[in-house]
Amino acid sequence: MIIDEILRPTNHSTVPETINKFIKISFKIHNGFKLLKVYGKVEDGAKAEIMGWVLSIREQKTVSFVIIVDNRKQVQLVINNTKLLKHIRQNSVIGASGTLKKTSKAPGGFEIHVNEVRVISKVKKDPPFNIMTKDLPSIDLRLDNRALDLRRPYNLDLFTIRAALIRSIREYLYSKGFLEVNTPKIIASASEGGAALFPLMYYDKQAFLAQSPQLYKEELTMPFERVFEIGPIFRAEPSRTLKHLSESVSLDVEAAFFTNDDLMNLIDGLVRNSLSDIWKSSSDLLVRIKAPKLGLPERLSRFTYGQIIDWLGKNDRKINFGDDLGQKDLELFGSHVNDFYFITEWPIKLKPFYIQPKDNEVTFSFDLMYRELELSSGGERVHDPSILRKNLKAAGLPVKSFRHHLIPYYYGMPPHGGFGMGVERLLMTITGADNIREVSLYPRDVRRLSP
Amino acid sequence: MIIDEILRPTNHSTVPETINKFIKISFKIHNGFKLLKVYGKVEDGAKAEIMGWVLSIREQKTVSFVIIVDNRKQVQLVINNTKLLKHIRQNSVIGASGTLKKTSKAPGGFEIHVNEVRVISKVKKDPPFNIMTKDLPSIDLRLDNRALDLRRPYNLDLFTIRAALIRSIREYLYSKGFLEVNTPKIIASASEGGAALFPLMYYDKQAFLAQSPQLYKEELTMPFERVFEIGPIFRAEPSRTLKHLSESVSLDVEAAFFTNDDLMNLIDGLVRNSLSDIWKSSSDLLVRIKAPKLGLPERLSRFTYGQIIDWLGKNDRKINFGDDLGQKDLELFGSHVNDFYFITEWPIKLKPFYIQPKDNEVTFSFDLMYRELELSSGGERVHDPSILRKNLKAAGLPVKSFRHHLIPYYYGMPPHGGFGMGVERLLMTITGADNIREVSLYPRDVRRLSP
Repeated sequence: MIIDEILRPTNHSTVPETINKFIKISFKIHNGFKLLKVYGKVEDGAKAEIMGWVLSIREQKTVSFVIIVDNRKQVQLVINNTKLLKHIRQNSVIGASGTLKKTSKAPGGFEIHVNEVRVISKVKKDPPFNIMTKDLPSIDLRLDNRALDLRRPYNLDLFTIRAALIRSIREYLYSKGFLEVNTPKIIASASEGGAALFPLMYYDKQAFLAQSPQLYKEELTMPFERVFEIGPIFRAEPSRTLKHLSESVSLDVEAAFFTNDDLMNLIDGLVRNSLSDIWKSSSDLLVRIKAPKLGLPERLSRFTYGQIIDWLGKNDRKINFGDDLGQKDLELFGSHVNDFYFITEWPIKLKPFYIQPKDNEVTFSFDLMYRELELSSGGERVHDPSILRKNLKAAGLPVKSFRHHLIPYYYGMPPHGGFGMGVERLLMTITGADNIREVSLYPRDVRRLSP
Repeated sequence: MIIDEILRPTNHSTVPETINKFIKISFKIHNGFKLLKVYGKVEDGAKAEIMGWVLSIREQKTVSFVIIVDNRKQVQLVINNTKLLKHIRQNSVIGASGTLKKTSKAPGGFEIHVNEVRVISKVKKDPPFNIMTKDLPSIDLRLDNRALDLRRPYNLDLFTIRAALIRSIREYLYSKGFLEVNTPKIIASASEGGAALFPLMYYDKQAFLAQSPQLYKEELTMPFERVFEIGPIFRAEPSRTLKHLSESVSLDVEAAFFTNDDLMNLIDGLVRNSLSDIWKSSSDLLVRIKAPKLGLPERLSRFTYGQIIDWLGKNDRKINFGDDLGQKDLELFGSHVNDFYFITEWPIKLKPFYIQPKDNEVTFSFDLMYRELELSSGGERVHDPSILRKNLKAAGLPVKSFRHHLIPYYYGMPPHGGFGMGVERLLMTITGADNIREVSLYPRDVRRLSP
């Protein structure tokens, strides 16, 4: 509940109201679109009602302060009647009515001096940790009690920022003519080879969970030219690190006629625009969770894979051309750049069958990095079906499984390119979170399937 | 490509350009954000370049008209040189340059008189059907060649409308204070009993694909109050009808403190707003695909289950209280209402364990219908954990499997309610499509897993 809303008094006489049958008292909930209700003019002394859950209680000799949370906004209640106070426990859901007072000391710029309190949903057990604690309990204890953990002010802010980020990304892509699509998550064949897939039985057939919308988004450039999807992807990666999940949310973009440079320009604009948007819409939240202020240079740097192994060689880490860059290599180079940057022109042998070669050695490809963390991977794609067939064979993949996918390539597939970007990883970078599990509502890894 | 865009001439001298290496000719693609490029002032005779795929060719004696599609917009090329024309085949991707001419006869209000054509990606096989045919081939043939099928003008329009619809739904929910979330699709226990679930192996554990975000969205009302998600749901329904998919896209909404009436009011506003938005943003597309003009009354009608079985009884269809309404019943009643409407107060025995009873017989629940088609189902939820446990036992469900889900209910779960809405079904209603497979990009059913 923000002061903006309180400054628009509800014309409650015209709103159909429902008696709150949950609490069977004089409180009324109006049509649910605003919970804080102020009667008459918004000014000191106006009558106000509110419902929410108790974040904290600070008792003083003659007066107590209760912070309640109403749709992710904190509102301060002032209570000077100990009889009222004794019903209020941290984590309970309460309704309160009283009079409004403007004050710069309270969150949102006002407080409610309470003369009536009703408990709507009482906390029934002692929670395993205090949501206001400064010493965070272990992440496993918190994830076991995730809904409670999400009540922590940090998490209310973090997932509000997450939604603002996703909204901003969509708006940017709409503005560039991209069509939002949904592709199937149950698929018949692996998009990048058979590794890391969850198999399932689809009626009487073998199927898999999609590890990316790769093949579908490529096909869709044929009718729609520019498409994007934000949805779940699934990777059966039994390794347990701070930056991998078994189920995560991916931004997938694909566009006809886009070159590698076009794609990197698009990402450059997208990241720049997202950061700018969320620091406009949610700066108070970002400050509260101590998000790093990420500066962006005029244009994100681009280094070829070759340049990077040269640099690493000069810094006592010898990499043979064609070998992948390891965690330690990326840490070293990433701390040198200390920013977002692209690694381009990856060797052919490190890339999947659908990536367009630039010459006999390297590809039209890129990874977007923040320091040592890979945020996005993309490039131009092969659009000639005979080359795709050849590449599938060379990669040891069964061409027959890709039969359906290859069909459209014979009917005028445009040259195209695209990228996938990990939403959780981008959010880690933006918020400074050090464990990817913190930025997923219900993370999934090799050990965790519940809640 | 719309005339708006052509009327904003590209200041191409300041845009970094990339030689189009795919076609290795004098065509240039600029940074990919606009494909139609007009040099200098936009006026008759201005030089123009365009890339896209060939929708249709109409040859006349001295001049031919080629419609090409550029980012889902049709542009007419005029060609009076038979040498140029002979390279052009339907479904190929071409580039063309020439001079601009304004004319009300062409789509978008202009045409390009072509003096140079290059083939970018040539159609390599005769397609199994003509995308401009008036006699549609069977849906199975079309789905087997879905990317080609999606090139049909009808589908370009339909999936553009779909994206506009989803965008409008999100904007409406943002405006009502709802937070967009993503919940896991791999889950440990069934949300509504064990039926109709796809099982999978999650590393060494048994898991399922989520048939709805039900339990997660309920939990999330505790920290966030109002949440929504638009994402995939999975139902192992082997029956093959015109309105069921095994994987579909669901809008899921859940809100603390919302009563049944609040929820129906929210849906009423959401449907009204969506229809109004898409008829504003996409009326030309809706007219082209012959979408029905759905009128909406001042307020959507609400009928109780009891009223409906009474009405059916008077119309020679006897239903015993507690029996579900069948297809024939809904067709009869639906044709009587002939509009959107709600069926409320369903019997307890027809509803899952988490639905709030109103009395000993019926629940605070509703279905949103359009004629005989169920679009949405929702209601108030039980928020008392001891009642939930009792209901689980009564439904014969293993309480132990819901152990993690029940945890938050002890820590002050607010009263809440919500609904799920089938995006494909809403789109069927809006567009008048008679088979749900038409409105899913890559439909999944008991017989179809590819492409």
